Amino acid sequence: MSRVSCAACKYQRRKCTSECVLAPYFPANQPKKFQNAHRLFGVRNMVKILDELKDEDQKSDAMKSIIFESDMREKFPVYGCVECISYLHQQLQITLQELQDVQSQLEFYRQQHPTATYPNFDR
Amino acid sequence: MSRVSCAACKYQRRKCTSECVLAPYFPANQPKKFQNAHRLFGVRNMVKILDELKDEDQKSDAMKSIIFESDMREKFPVYGCVECISYLHQQLQITLQELQDVQSQLEFYRQQHPTATYPNFDR
Repeated sequence: MSRVSCAACKYQRRKCTSECVLAPYFPANQPKKFQNAHRLFGVRNMVKILDELKDEDQKSDAMKSIIFESDMREKFPVYGCVECISYLHQQLQITLQELQDVQSQLEFYRQQHPTATYPNFDR
Repeated sequence: MSRVSCAACKYQRRKCTSECVLAPYFPANQPKKFQNAHRLFGVRNMVKILDELKDEDQKSDAMKSIIFESDMREKFPVYGCVECISYLHQQLQITLQELQDVQSQLEFYRQQHPTATYPNFDR
């Protein structure tokens, strides 16, 4: 049966068969996705990761995370996806600090006006 | 000059020379650190990443992120460091929601008691 080679097989100039484990994750029309993943992890390591997982959903999630890490490494050659982690960590710290400030202000108003009640529509 | 082989050279059973680019990041007494990185990225890919960066600080930061990603992949075989990203993202969403709730409450108190002022010691 004729079959369009996936981006992984196309790059490696080999025949893509129905047994190709990388084909579901690297469609022929997205060569960059494969190149980034191949560049960072290599085909053998990706196949090893897939081999070690039994569940199809887990394989799919693992490949999504592998592709994400590869794309991030291309975008941020020094930090890779640690760049996202640092950004989110920083945003969380800023938001927690803001929450603490607003809670202090709210506490102040509550102490000043102990009889005032805030309407709670949810409960 | 005699030299203790780094974990990378020890694992590959080769002589560790002063030119070994991986030695600064994989001390002999931390073999697991190298095994995780080797398992996920392979020596060749790590050397390639180092070769592409000129600045020593950047090389060091890149290796820290590589080692972090490897350790996370060992801990979370399906999601790797995307596990951290998801967790931080979730925490940020929860905190932003909480901030919004507290800000609504504060706004309510302010409207109820427009003359009350919150002491601002910082400004």
